[in-house]
Amino acid sequence: MVSGLHRNRQRAASMVRRISFVILALAVLTGYQPVNSQKSDTFNGFELVDPKGNIRKPADYRDHYQSLGTWAVLDPRGNELHVVYASPGAAEYFRKNGKFGDGTVLVKEVFATDHAQMTTGDAYRASAMIQWFVMIKDEKHRFPNSGLWGDGWGWALFKADAPDKQVATNFKKDCISCHVPAQSTDWVYIQGYPVLKSK
Amino acid sequence: MVSGLHRNRQRAASMVRRISFVILALAVLTGYQPVNSQKSDTFNGFELVDPKGNIRKPADYRDHYQSLGTWAVLDPRGNELHVVYASPGAAEYFRKNGKFGDGTVLVKEVFATDHAQMTTGDAYRASAMIQWFVMIKDEKHRFPNSGLWGDGWGWALFKADAPDKQVATNFKKDCISCHVPAQSTDWVYIQGYPVLKSK
Repeated sequence: MVSGLHRNRQRAASMVRRISFVILALAVLTGYQPVNSQKSDTFNGFELVDPKGNIRKPADYRDHYQSLGTWAVLDPRGNELHVVYASPGAAEYFRKNGKFGDGTVLVKEVFATDHAQMTTGDAYRASAMIQWFVMIKDEKHRFPNSGLWGDGWGWALFKADAPDKQVATNFKKDCISCHVPAQSTDWVYIQGYPVLKSK
Repeated sequence: MVSGLHRNRQRAASMVRRISFVILALAVLTGYQPVNSQKSDTFNGFELVDPKGNIRKPADYRDHYQSLGTWAVLDPRGNELHVVYASPGAAEYFRKNGKFGDGTVLVKEVFATDHAQMTTGDAYRASAMIQWFVMIKDEKHRFPNSGLWGDGWGWALFKADAPDKQVATNFKKDCISCHVPAQSTDWVYIQGYPVLKSK
């Protein structure tokens, strides 16, 4: 009887080990991570930021970010296209919450244009890159001593002659003046982005 | 000896069953499917197509497709923005292979525009939807009896007054004439899409 109980315990322990192995294997293979309700549906743009608040331009945003919208800027010196991307899930979060989530990244490409009379009419398309603006939503005022962070965002600028070199020194001087008319919508011209209203 | 061999066989069979269970569980939970080298890195746009070749407009493309590029079409009767999306992975496949993969979906949104003098200049942005064009790459001439399929693509048109109703009847009449100048690049104006050249 004692011996039978011992065998049952051994079997039970063996089964627990096997089940634990299966759960561990599943966790590894499915990429399961513990739920973090604060972060679960926003993008962690702070992976682009070093401890001092310096901002990198995201790689692969053209393949993996979503399009928010494009502005055509007509200028006698040369028309431009301003193409705006947001990090994955940004629009869905905005539609649910009426604001951009903490950690959301926006990338604005500024292009020169070529144009031609095409079958649809006088059509302008992106040609040479001029520069990129990058914004990262920061609800927590993480970098009070950095000139690149303030008014709820991190602000960065990259120019085509050195695409990986962030060149803004102070967001008040280099960035926000052009955004003043959009202050009431958290400094972003949301009226240009239909996806923020509907899929 | 015979009995010992029998026990070993039983143990081996039990182990095979346990391993089989683990593999099956992993397959279910990781969504594993057998490798299909033809399809592994392209999108299956044929999920949008019924057995007769009728084409649906993809839901959620604004959230889940990637941006290829935007055309600004200047017209005295009203400027337009033509915003082109591709199914996930389309640009990466094109950069590797020099062509769109079988099953790739392209969506072109045609917008009317609003404009205003803004801090960047005379800026036009998308306003009302006018219509959508959808193309699905078909290397296998799957629907020889459908008027919507030919020249390597499926072709579809949806208008804003009935966004889910496909209204093209024959791609030669309703679609391809505007694409003739792009015949040498598989009917697509690839010069407007910087992401096809670089990330």
